[in-house]
Amino acid sequence: MQPILPQTIRNLIEEFSQLPGIGTKTAERFVFYLLKKQPADLQRFANNLSRLKENVKLCSICQTLAEQDPCYICSNPERDKSIICVVAEPTDLAAIEKTDDYQGVYHVLNGVLNPIENITPDKLKIDELIQRIKKDKPQEVILALNPDIEGESTSLYLNKLLKALDIKVTRLAKGLPMGSDLEYADQATLSSALFNRKDID
Amino acid sequence: MQPILPQTIRNLIEEFSQLPGIGTKTAERFVFYLLKKQPADLQRFANNLSRLKENVKLCSICQTLAEQDPCYICSNPERDKSIICVVAEPTDLAAIEKTDDYQGVYHVLNGVLNPIENITPDKLKIDELIQRIKKDKPQEVILALNPDIEGESTSLYLNKLLKALDIKVTRLAKGLPMGSDLEYADQATLSSALFNRKDID
Repeated sequence: MQPILPQTIRNLIEEFSQLPGIGTKTAERFVFYLLKKQPADLQRFANNLSRLKENVKLCSICQTLAEQDPCYICSNPERDKSIICVVAEPTDLAAIEKTDDYQGVYHVLNGVLNPIENITPDKLKIDELIQRIKKDKPQEVILALNPDIEGESTSLYLNKLLKALDIKVTRLAKGLPMGSDLEYADQATLSSALFNRKDID
Repeated sequence: MQPILPQTIRNLIEEFSQLPGIGTKTAERFVFYLLKKQPADLQRFANNLSRLKENVKLCSICQTLAEQDPCYICSNPERDKSIICVVAEPTDLAAIEKTDDYQGVYHVLNGVLNPIENITPDKLKIDELIQRIKKDKPQEVILALNPDIEGESTSLYLNKLLKALDIKVTRLAKGLPMGSDLEYADQATLSSALFNRKDID
């Protein structure tokens, strides 16, 4: 039987359905939405896509995605180089920057350890972190990875490496998120909040 | 403050977040996924996007998206031209074709009536349908629109127009979907299934 949808449409559905979490049905919705757009809009989208990696490199110091090297954080003389905050992805860096509460510098691993997906320590920017710490001798390294299985095991792995360098290692606090409801908190979060309870000043 | 992510990345996040049902967070996930792809893959995706509307036109008879005009269904002499199945989108046509149980032809409205989004009868291929029916005088018109508010009101509207042409109009049966569980059926579906109950042959 001849396929029902035109080839160009099927090609694009195929492309969209490669994206994480997107199945054929959602990809179809995207394509039918785009079919109602002007050709100029599609061309602009296509240009943004093909130019994605242009002008984007990793900062040679902190390994984040940046247009300049060193990135604008590493090249800012007002940032405190004695504290390095280790994050998994540039988006995590962006999230911490938005708090406006951190004046130190970052190190982006560009992933977390995940044996199932074959992401081993050599695939991450761990070696760069160790070399950087040996060279710059910061006072503190903050591990700011997601509190999930991969993030926790990466933190454990890094902690072991960093302790050997005789350096102060901290991690982000775990507990109830602001504005949450104790009744609906999951058991692991509540256990963690109990275990890490603090004196009221 | 200088934006944290490079311009090319922000551009593409902006493009993806225009897609239906996609927010900034999901768009970010797409872009960071694509950043790990080879430039050649991105270029192919971009080409498929910019070529989406190339070679795609509406069939002058049934108004579906097609690479040839008339489309391969309308130009197939074995299809029964005396039954026209009216659908909202080419994907609905594809869904019915997959059943392999329909040998008639189609008419694609390319949308449904939706006053809130300003989709009025003149925005749909309704006039083309009326002209076609007047010319071809089919025996039956099947309204195969979604059983939701927009689909139902479009069916009602079409039914009124078609009855004036003195033509047999049917619609797809409503009731419990195959493999569903009566206990979890929503009230409207169950009411409809009760109301449309059939004698057991």
